[in-house]
Amino acid sequence: MLDIAVIGAGRIGQIHARNIAAHQGARLVGVADPDEAAARRLADACGTSVISLDAAFAAKAVLIASPTPTHADFIEAAANAGQAIFCEKPIDLSVARVEECLATVRRAGVALMVGFNRRFDPHFAELKRRLDAGAIGRLEMLTIISRDPSPPPPAYVAVSGGLFRDMMIHDLDMALFLLGEEPVSVYAAASVQVDPAIGTAGDVDTAMVTLRTASGRLCQISNSRRATYGYDQRIEAHGATGMLRAGNVPVSTVELANASGITADPVLPFFLERYAAAYRAELDCFVTNVASGPSGDDGLAALRLADAATRSAQTGQVVAL
Amino acid sequence: MLDIAVIGAGRIGQIHARNIAAHQGARLVGVADPDEAAARRLADACGTSVISLDAAFAAKAVLIASPTPTHADFIEAAANAGQAIFCEKPIDLSVARVEECLATVRRAGVALMVGFNRRFDPHFAELKRRLDAGAIGRLEMLTIISRDPSPPPPAYVAVSGGLFRDMMIHDLDMALFLLGEEPVSVYAAASVQVDPAIGTAGDVDTAMVTLRTASGRLCQISNSRRATYGYDQRIEAHGATGMLRAGNVPVSTVELANASGITADPVLPFFLERYAAAYRAELDCFVTNVASGPSGDDGLAALRLADAATRSAQTGQVVAL
Amino acid sequence: MLDIAVIGAGRIGQIHARNIAAHQGARLVGVADPDEAAARRLADACGTSVISLDAAFAAKAVLIASPTPTHADFIEAAANAGQAIFCEKPIDLSVARVEECLATVRRAGVALMVGFNRRFDPHFAELKRRLDAGAIGRLEMLTIISRDPSPPPPAYVAVSGGLFRDMMIHDLDMALFLLGEEPVSVYAAASVQVDPAIGTAGDVDTAMVTLRTASGRLCQISNSRRATYGYDQRIEAHGATGMLRAGNVPVSTVELANASGITADPVLPFFLERYAAAYRAELDCFVTNVASGPSGDDGLAALRLADAATRSAQTGQVVAL
Amino acid sequence: MLDIAVIGAGRIGQIHARNIAAHQGARLVGVADPDEAAARRLADACGTSVISLDAAFAAKAVLIASPTPTHADFIEAAANAGQAIFCEKPIDLSVARVEECLATVRRAGVALMVGFNRRFDPHFAELKRRLDAGAIGRLEMLTIISRDPSPPPPAYVAVSGGLFRDMMIHDLDMALFLLGEEPVSVYAAASVQVDPAIGTAGDVDTAMVTLRTASGRLCQISNSRRATYGYDQRIEAHGATGMLRAGNVPVSTVELANASGITADPVLPFFLERYAAAYRAELDCFVTNVASGPSGDDGLAALRLADAATRSAQTGQVVAL
Repeated sequence: MLDIAVIGAGRIGQIHARNIAAHQGARLVGVADPDEAAARRLADACGTSVISLDAAFAAKAVLIASPTPTHADFIEAAANAGQAIFCEKPIDLSVARVEECLATVRRAGVALMVGFNRRFDPHFAELKRRLDAGAIGRLEMLTIISRDPSPPPPAYVAVSGGLFRDMMIHDLDMALFLLGEEPVSVYAAASVQVDPAIGTAGDVDTAMVTLRTASGRLCQISNSRRATYGYDQRIEAHGATGMLRAGNVPVSTVELANASGITADPVLPFFLERYAAAYRAELDCFVTNVASGPSGDDGLAALRLADAATRSAQTGQVVAL
Repeated sequence: MLDIAVIGAGRIGQIHARNIAAHQGARLVGVADPDEAAARRLADACGTSVISLDAAFAAKAVLIASPTPTHADFIEAAANAGQAIFCEKPIDLSVARVEECLATVRRAGVALMVGFNRRFDPHFAELKRRLDAGAIGRLEMLTIISRDPSPPPPAYVAVSGGLFRDMMIHDLDMALFLLGEEPVSVYAAASVQVDPAIGTAGDVDTAMVTLRTASGRLCQISNSRRATYGYDQRIEAHGATGMLRAGNVPVSTVELANASGITADPVLPFFLERYAAAYRAELDCFVTNVASGPSGDDGLAALRLADAATRSAQTGQVVAL
Repeated sequence: MLDIAVIGAGRIGQIHARNIAAHQGARLVGVADPDEAAARRLADACGTSVISLDAAFAAKAVLIASPTPTHADFIEAAANAGQAIFCEKPIDLSVARVEECLATVRRAGVALMVGFNRRFDPHFAELKRRLDAGAIGRLEMLTIISRDPSPPPPAYVAVSGGLFRDMMIHDLDMALFLLGEEPVSVYAAASVQVDPAIGTAGDVDTAMVTLRTASGRLCQISNSRRATYGYDQRIEAHGATGMLRAGNVPVSTVELANASGITADPVLPFFLERYAAAYRAELDCFVTNVASGPSGDDGLAALRLADAATRSAQTGQVVAL
Repeated sequence: MLDIAVIGAGRIGQIHARNIAAHQGARLVGVADPDEAAARRLADACGTSVISLDAAFAAKAVLIASPTPTHADFIEAAANAGQAIFCEKPIDLSVARVEECLATVRRAGVALMVGFNRRFDPHFAELKRRLDAGAIGRLEMLTIISRDPSPPPPAYVAVSGGLFRDMMIHDLDMALFLLGEEPVSVYAAASVQVDPAIGTAGDVDTAMVTLRTASGRLCQISNSRRATYGYDQRIEAHGATGMLRAGNVPVSTVELANASGITADPVLPFFLERYAAAYRAELDCFVTNVASGPSGDDGLAALRLADAATRSAQTGQVVAL
């Protein structure tokens, strides 16, 4: 039984707290949040208590779901307290700060797992399993399409680190997860198509990235901050002996046929619905593997790619890695 | 090279005449029709001549695409002239007349092929091929869904012989084609749901039939004179080791995704589009197999089933065969 | 907060107990089962206690998930104790006994809900919602395909009441739920195709049923005790202005494309997986509507249809209702 | 009635000759080919004569389906003879030679149509029609996936001009057709994944390209010389109010469901099958619009893009246009 404290009672903290409360191998020891009302509501809903930050750092494990700027400090505090750590992505928007933070984690000898939830999506995990099992022979090309239903508010955009660090980092992590090789170059083309306010805030809302590995494997990623038909999350892996793809999940299987055609449901609206199972599986992985010590290095690798993609989009040039 | 005369320049005669003109192993020797203008238009379009009925019966083979009440007489005339005969279904609406007609054909020793075009649909033919090849082991259940896009005019309904002889006869033939055993009982439930005028004309527009074979294989057929989404033609065969199904063909593969969902095209609108390839394959079968002499018995077996289904729907009772 | 005791710690009792434990508006007050070890394991897993039958009948509500032959007695005991009752289907295999039992419930003035879980399946519920909202105009035809992955053990078959009362009763209930009218006749064709031992036990494993309502609506149901590709659960409703269908749910969205074609996952293996959400929604309905008092009449109507279908299959004749 | 001579009796010449022979508004006046036996076979099959090159250039129109190195010379000869010209792509592998050739065509004032057949594919044409009709609002992103079933022989690779000019040129033309704006930059990543002999011949077999237009529209193209599941031809257009996609066409609609899952047919094997209707529609466009004079400029624009993509792949840098 792993005792876990949750820091952060926002949208993502609520998911994790409920999952911990329902997990047979974990115990939710409390919820800490400067917004006491929010902490109270979540604690009540999960049958646990509101606790202080100090108490949170005294548990056997901590799950950090607070705002991004606090992540690195909290990870270091937890590492110094000898806790097993689960932290929502990203560790930080600065590679230097992430490296510093990971060094602290290594010195402390604690486990750190960064919340790349998509690796745990049952559909993507099954694709990965079959890829590893040789279902399509040697992987040659990867296509990742990932579109949010609608853009975040401009206020969020301004502190988000930009589309590549905030949104595409998930797809870059997925590319690293599936490619089986390090990219050697990245090219990003990006523009503002959805909302001029995003451009005013210094960001883009539409982007396409190409990765190339040393052996010549190629990967394309397509991102938009808008998809009218739901949260679009698709992966296609093309190999020597076949092609594997994982598609979207519809709201229901109901179809209506009439003179307009045959209309299937939109896809699940956003990450809370699409990745509900992924969040449960991710937590289960943390609880199960806490002893063997995940290192948090995934968070660094994906951030480095996101930095390179940002640079490529800004300069219009290919960036060598 | 098989010389074929076409009798009938209507909708179905046009299909056959064009297919004969384009077939490498056949020659269209002319078109006969009491409506001379129609015959002329079709003959011109196919690069052939308008001919008399007598001339049509002098060709090596004849394709009868005239109105139903003329079929049996024309078949007999052609049989007596020693021609190979392709006749659109049905031979006649009376089983007794069909038996008489087939006896004439047998005595004459000529080949007679009845136009059950669906057996030649590439999708259904492929399903049949795999069924015969053992893809699903022993067949246990068959489901046939067949819906016209819209009801025929009441004037046609009155002379059509009724839904079972006019429309479901195709599905009954398909059931005979696929079941691999003779049905021993038939039950039909039918009603007027689409157009009261059809009821006034003494017919039904909605029907469900169940067939049972001696070994216990079961078959359901579902017919409606209305389908808002196109010409609905589906077959599903369930067996000991799997299930095979052949679905509808969409107008195009284009899909539109938006907040309403993901909308695929309606299915092909009616038999001219859906069975264009079937009509070509059917003709090719006639040209290729004319020597080995198809017997026309299929036309009789399906009509007997249609008669039994009609009786069942009228009495509300199961009919033993 | 509704206090609910669970009677029965078997497969279906486990589902319900866990769902009660996780429901925000319910409290699991204990688990009763003559098999004390099973009761213990389930109580432990749900953080509750093993209780006696007497204690179970002392709770505010009871959920009966014990073997079928005990259902009616337990319902009557619960009714006499003034409890709200949720009982797994069927109430009993005898219509007379069910009528007696429902009379007791009525006299006691308590709520009784029978577990027809499929009405709560999100896909079927959505189909029903759109049907009621007029998405396809007036309903004309209904097609229900329902196939178990594999036959039950012959020992179970012998006491099951037969395919129509044990398996098709769910589809008959769904037909009643969707047709919007009472059937006036039923015809059933059935046979043994899957396992001769089922025939030896006096039952069938393959069946097709046709229902007809007073206004002429038609419904076909197709049942098999075998489906190699998973638990096959499909509904198609055809109406004046369109067609609605609810399909199967695949294990994952992953597809493999190679020279064999494009292979999607099998459908969810059986009811535990396919109807997991339905069981939660069903419980939620019970908890939410307990005051307004569901009557349990659904259980009787479906059983009467199952009896009629059984009679039809045995006599080979149509049964008027 | 347009008199057309065909030059070239190879695979593509056969398609065009048969389509001309079957077209109601065209007449096939003969087939010219240095391989007399091939010319004879094709002429016989189409009911026309073998003719000399001189005779071919004397017809009202000429269809050039000879080997690529002859295209530009034949176009100029035809232009100087005042013929309407249909030429298979590419006009030439050298931009300079194409420009020269187009200048000749302009001076002669004749019509030149280059065979970009995919624009006439019913599925892609329907996507284009809806895009133009505003079905998805302003276009933002385009994704084109195009994979051949298997690589061409190395001997062909050596004279093909390379993957970008030989294969991707079709996709680049499709991008130009759909984007509605000129690209301002192109980036290509390419490698040898399928067959080392292709690398030895100085070419690549796997490539991904990104195009960017002035207004920030982005387009990704994915090419492979191998697809085990057939000829993979897909387009997806993402816009402000929706997404349109056109998918592959399966060999048949038959699906097999068993314990391995639900297996649909592979997609149509190669361009002869997939684009059969496109070739007919393309010819029809030529016959119908010959008077209004298509200019052949499309051939130049796509070739310029292919050249830029080749340069980008060779240098690893983005190429501005």
